[in-house]
Amino acid sequence: MAQGPRIVIIGGVACGPKTACRLKRIMPESQVTLIDRDRIVSYGACGLPYYVEGQFENIETLTHTPVGIARTPAFFDQAKGFTVHTQTEALSIDREAKSVQVKDLANDTISTLAYDKLVLATGGSAFKPPIPGIDFENVWFMTHPDHAESMAAQIQQQGLKRAVLIGAGFIGLEMAEALTLQGLDVTVVEMEDQIMPGLLDEDMATYAAKHIRSKGVYLALDERAVAIEGNGKVAALKTTAQTYPADLVMVAVGTRPNDQLAREAGLLCNNGIVINQHCQTSDPDIYAGGDCVINHYSTADANPMFVPLGSTANKHGRVIADHIANKPTPFSGITATGIVRAFDYTIGRTGLTEKAARQSGLEIETTTWAGPDKPHYMDAKPLAIKMIASQKDRRLLGIQVAGLSTAGKGYLDVAAAAILFGGNLDQLANVDFCYAPPYSPPIEPLATCAHLLTNKLDGLANGVSPLEAKKRIEAGEVVLLDARTPAELEEMRLPYDVVHIPLGALRQRMHELPRDRDILAFCKVSMRGYEAQRILNAAGYERVGFIEGGIVGWPFEVQFG
Amino acid sequence: MAQGPRIVIIGGVACGPKTACRLKRIMPESQVTLIDRDRIVSYGACGLPYYVEGQFENIETLTHTPVGIARTPAFFDQAKGFTVHTQTEALSIDREAKSVQVKDLANDTISTLAYDKLVLATGGSAFKPPIPGIDFENVWFMTHPDHAESMAAQIQQQGLKRAVLIGAGFIGLEMAEALTLQGLDVTVVEMEDQIMPGLLDEDMATYAAKHIRSKGVYLALDERAVAIEGNGKVAALKTTAQTYPADLVMVAVGTRPNDQLAREAGLLCNNGIVINQHCQTSDPDIYAGGDCVINHYSTADANPMFVPLGSTANKHGRVIADHIANKPTPFSGITATGIVRAFDYTIGRTGLTEKAARQSGLEIETTTWAGPDKPHYMDAKPLAIKMIASQKDRRLLGIQVAGLSTAGKGYLDVAAAAILFGGNLDQLANVDFCYAPPYSPPIEPLATCAHLLTNKLDGLANGVSPLEAKKRIEAGEVVLLDARTPAELEEMRLPYDVVHIPLGALRQRMHELPRDRDILAFCKVSMRGYEAQRILNAAGYERVGFIEGGIVGWPFEVQFG
Repeated sequence: MAQGPRIVIIGGVACGPKTACRLKRIMPESQVTLIDRDRIVSYGACGLPYYVEGQFENIETLTHTPVGIARTPAFFDQAKGFTVHTQTEALSIDREAKSVQVKDLANDTISTLAYDKLVLATGGSAFKPPIPGIDFENVWFMTHPDHAESMAAQIQQQGLKRAVLIGAGFIGLEMAEALTLQGLDVTVVEMEDQIMPGLLDEDMATYAAKHIRSKGVYLALDERAVAIEGNGKVAALKTTAQTYPADLVMVAVGTRPNDQLAREAGLLCNNGIVINQHCQTSDPDIYAGGDCVINHYSTADANPMFVPLGSTANKHGRVIADHIANKPTPFSGITATGIVRAFDYTIGRTGLTEKAARQSGLEIETTTWAGPDKPHYMDAKPLAIKMIASQKDRRLLGIQVAGLSTAGKGYLDVAAAAILFGGNLDQLANVDFCYAPPYSPPIEPLATCAHLLTNKLDGLANGVSPLEAKKRIEAGEVVLLDARTPAELEEMRLPYDVVHIPLGALRQRMHELPRDRDILAFCKVSMRGYEAQRILNAAGYERVGFIEGGIVGWPFEVQFG
Repeated sequence: MAQGPRIVIIGGVACGPKTACRLKRIMPESQVTLIDRDRIVSYGACGLPYYVEGQFENIETLTHTPVGIARTPAFFDQAKGFTVHTQTEALSIDREAKSVQVKDLANDTISTLAYDKLVLATGGSAFKPPIPGIDFENVWFMTHPDHAESMAAQIQQQGLKRAVLIGAGFIGLEMAEALTLQGLDVTVVEMEDQIMPGLLDEDMATYAAKHIRSKGVYLALDERAVAIEGNGKVAALKTTAQTYPADLVMVAVGTRPNDQLAREAGLLCNNGIVINQHCQTSDPDIYAGGDCVINHYSTADANPMFVPLGSTANKHGRVIADHIANKPTPFSGITATGIVRAFDYTIGRTGLTEKAARQSGLEIETTTWAGPDKPHYMDAKPLAIKMIASQKDRRLLGIQVAGLSTAGKGYLDVAAAAILFGGNLDQLANVDFCYAPPYSPPIEPLATCAHLLTNKLDGLANGVSPLEAKKRIEAGEVVLLDARTPAELEEMRLPYDVVHIPLGALRQRMHELPRDRDILAFCKVSMRGYEAQRILNAAGYERVGFIEGGIVGWPFEVQFG
């Protein structure tokens, strides 16, 4: 076979191996060498919390293919046709000479690898907060199989019972689940005043946090970790507010792009290596992908953002290989999709949050819907959906989901597609969604949410978010109208004085409501709340709104019985 | 309140009530009267199989709201503000006078309802095949709560054991599940040679049928029901091939639009009432929606089609109300989405099948992918996806799914959105799908399937469908290359002679394969099959393909152990 171009890939997880595998399939003459400073490559880092949780028994599962073949250098050589050097660190790039200086960490020898095209897949690193005790025994990060393996082993061997996790992002919540299910007491310390800061808006974060607390996790929000206390070994975590006794501390306060090598080589970086749609860096012979790059957003609504994810890294790998092989398939950017399972809750987002959209100066409208994911006669599970759209052209900008229903996964995917395709709310509501009782109600909740937001934009629905409603209720500004049946009222209620008029009696009994005060109606999911608003509007009551999501979507305490 | 326009709605399930409810919310001055010849209205007809299955105990659940309020005329009057006349049949429409002649079935009196706008929501009727015995006792259709209630009661009271269902469409498969779970022996008779004819392509139907058979259902395909035998009560069903002893027969061989009233009024009909994007008929003062209309397809790829579904009926209702209220929200048509749960299989489709696309003269390419819906270290479940795209512009035209994974539901919704938005395969693969191990592998299966189809269009992947592969294998035209590990081969194999070379050994052992014969490679899911093809191609083997979907997607028998 003719000798093709020399491709050097730095980094052996996700983007790197994906680039190499794809390249060898579509450009078999290419000579591909992948190096990594680690002793293992191509492992499933996202699976680490599930190892700790006990989902699978052998940590090597993460470094083996689904049929049990270890992803070793020999495997890549034989099955995939490219060379892998582990324990080999890239020291510097000579862009002029088109070579990489590398160090064999086992033998401590230095050599040079010449390239025609270079691929930087150097990944990201967990941010290490500069606090005392961060290097103590029983302090873990969760980015490498060794971390998961040693944490699980030490929990067993030392009988660790009290876990304090720093950071309430994706990994923090996954580990809160894993450690709780392993029988530990879990506290999550988060410096922001909500879980998943920057990922969810406050209202959805509050809604999800209520459920996570119900599983026994203590959420220490608005507290900053100050010091890990102990004598070389974790005894407690001190925050700006309290000191939490702890047998183990896990730190997951964000990832930083490993872009030092690129910066030293003079490549353009900006909180990650800057790439074009073909994943080329500012040097067209050098590509970059995975957690070391900053991604374009799919639409003009947001600036590039650093969102490290294995799914994106794999997309990058394909794009890089295709461009090297002269079969370009441009990457259309990300919409910042993220999902996490926290116990039996599915929590996720795609697109822009309300906060991010407002910070970008976009004129938007939002709504929150809550309700069941199936007809009431099936095993329906509730979820809440928050939706954000542009006022001007009604384009979908983002959604967030949280709830017991796993249907949120599909809604996020549909919304991610709609955002990428520039779809507006009317189109979203018109999608020919699947309908059968085991899967959804006849009107898909995502469509219902789009309808509700359209109704707000059209001035028909005067929905008020639960957070706003709570403020106005507690300031004594509103009269609450509970439009539910007496039986529902018996079962559960908001902890406030209400006027109780079931919807069916409202046309007869509306005189019980004042015309000169603001009225907020609600019901179980606020469909009847919205209908009450319309009935009252039609009768000349002008100051009427409803609490979006009703009692099912209420993120604060309710009273039972 | 000012007296608004008089709106008369004929038909009280799905589209009719939806029109009325929406209209009263956005145009409260409208005077809305809904009539239906039945004694009950607004019931969840799609829930009938689940009542028979025992999912819920009281048939009235289907005529009550989620909080237990009966949807009676009084309910609609009090809570929704419109008038309902049950047991009232529309006899004729006088378009000149703008009135409907109606008959009160209880009192046998005839009167006239004047309208400004008329809405036809007359629904569909189950087709009644003209065979002897069709009116016997214990022959059921499944379109009304009475049917489900009496079937369930008679199964108990008479101890019915042997069920024969005529028609292997959505309702046939739902009832096969329901009756099997109720302990009956179930035979499904279908005149076409596959289940879900017109809905799934033969290959996907064969794949799904294999699973349904494994649940004990006997599928009598390619057999036409000829007569129901018995003495006034079902004893057997005779088909063109056999006679099946039967204690009950259920007939579900399709729905016909109830468009007679419209036809008699001179409205344009064509296998359903013809409507525009605002659901107006050929008379602009008369609207129609729900199962009595023929729908536009969302793109120019297909002609209007009759697809009666509750989800579409609800969309129509909203569109009609919005147009009457001068807030038009045009309906963008259907993509013929359909889904059914058959035991633990999720089976569905959206867009065009391969067969329909070819019949339309479209130049297409297709592929089938099969594999797990999650990383292998989680509780992954398999599914198969068939994807159809236009050769010319790579637009997605349709997908079909079948498998144990319920993720197919979300894939169908994403595909329905992509088809509506005119998305192509590259865009579909670029959607920022959710990724976390409890939900999906890092490369979403729908994206993998799009990649595979792109690879076929680019001449990289030479995938062959299982049906085509079987034909060529049994004609002795191909050498089979099993690229799996020895352990996998021990566990399960195709029932044919194969050359067994694990992928990792192929570069060394390819000389065992002939260069002058067609080779078909495969593995568990045919990823290694595809890789084997590329490795052999690179070594100058030109006549190599792979079996799409591998063993997981193989729709015929395999050998175990």
